[in-house]
Amino acid sequence: MEKTELLEIVSDFSLFSRLGKDQLDRLVKHATVSRLPKRALFFSESSSRQGLHVLLSGQVKLFKVSDDGKEQTIFVFGPGEPFCLCSVFSDGRLPASLAALEDSEVLFISPAEYESMVREDPAILLNMMRVMSRRLKEAMDMIDSLSLKQVPSRLAAYFLSRERDGMVLLDLSYRELSKIIGITPEALSRALKKMGEDGLIRVDRSEVRIVDSGRLEEVRDGRL
Amino acid sequence: MEKTELLEIVSDFSLFSRLGKDQLDRLVKHATVSRLPKRALFFSESSSRQGLHVLLSGQVKLFKVSDDGKEQTIFVFGPGEPFCLCSVFSDGRLPASLAALEDSEVLFISPAEYESMVREDPAILLNMMRVMSRRLKEAMDMIDSLSLKQVPSRLAAYFLSRERDGMVLLDLSYRELSKIIGITPEALSRALKKMGEDGLIRVDRSEVRIVDSGRLEEVRDGRL
Repeated sequence: MEKTELLEIVSDFSLFSRLGKDQLDRLVKHATVSRLPKRALFFSESSSRQGLHVLLSGQVKLFKVSDDGKEQTIFVFGPGEPFCLCSVFSDGRLPASLAALEDSEVLFISPAEYESMVREDPAILLNMMRVMSRRLKEAMDMIDSLSLKQVPSRLAAYFLSRERDGMVLLDLSYRELSKIIGITPEALSRALKKMGEDGLIRVDRSEVRIVDSGRLEEVRDGRL
Repeated sequence: MEKTELLEIVSDFSLFSRLGKDQLDRLVKHATVSRLPKRALFFSESSSRQGLHVLLSGQVKLFKVSDDGKEQTIFVFGPGEPFCLCSVFSDGRLPASLAALEDSEVLFISPAEYESMVREDPAILLNMMRVMSRRLKEAMDMIDSLSLKQVPSRLAAYFLSRERDGMVLLDLSYRELSKIIGITPEALSRALKKMGEDGLIRVDRSEVRIVDSGRLEEVRDGRL
């Protein structure tokens, strides 16, 4: 990838919104870009990674695997999202695995360069903290959902949190969606079918239309 | 509380380990301390809090409540732990509730003062990020545990992660512990009894002795 093209892409990322032109130039100068084909594993839990990683294009998932091979997706990241956030101060041991859901590209800045950037201007740290606090909130919601809610309620919460103009774009396969909700693909199928029959949603290929948001909210809150 | 006494307490907190004497003096000068009696609610989900909050003494829990009143504890904090971490950049809306498990004291720095401290020397931000990344890892482990593991496995994971010299100090009531594991107190009782009968642990009031750590690891990993 050309450096000018890279500069254009990263200038749009909110993660770098506090960086000046000089800092962006420097970032791009020291960055390397690697390709990650769909389904490729970028790293696995307990392996080590340091430095700054930001998804440039595509889509990746961060997930845990149990000993019997069951997967639980924790986060799905799109372009502009950083990962391995903790590695700047720790030994870099990773709490989960990361794999590509689509053909993706990853920007990488070496630990030495990243640390020197941070020392020079801590602005980027504030944006990092913003990302971390958002993820912490999401993780807490997920704990809430997994521990306190039944399957239809979790699914309703997922749709309502991602709804835009009455539509939810399913940019994930059913299989991947089921790993986010923390259920089997079969249970997801059944729950979607039931919600359709009850007139709450209408599923059309990769789009879900929210037909009755009031009742969907009641399902989410366990009142229906 | 006397300012000198307060200075002595906060100097020992790793959260402030990067602060120089001047910054610590300033922090203490602007701090207010409030008391939080056992069982008191400090804030509830969706309320707003800004500024820096650090537990000085006692023990508090951060938790979510479902609509039918079921509680899930997400974190338990002891002295030196900050909370409302996100409030420095957001509108301060809180993702969960916080209540005291013991008589506690909370140090508070106003948003304006906190921001001016951070601007002057961002050292404290690095420690904040360290705390956030640790909590993010813990939250991910919890998601893993809730979604992928059965009750005995969760309980084994909890004991093994908190074991020191073969002992786990239960500084929480069974009722509170059950809210961390995400089960009913009755299910916790049964699981503890079974682990005792199987010779994995020995429970003595507020202490759990790990009798057979090898087999307990097998339970945690779902191999037993």
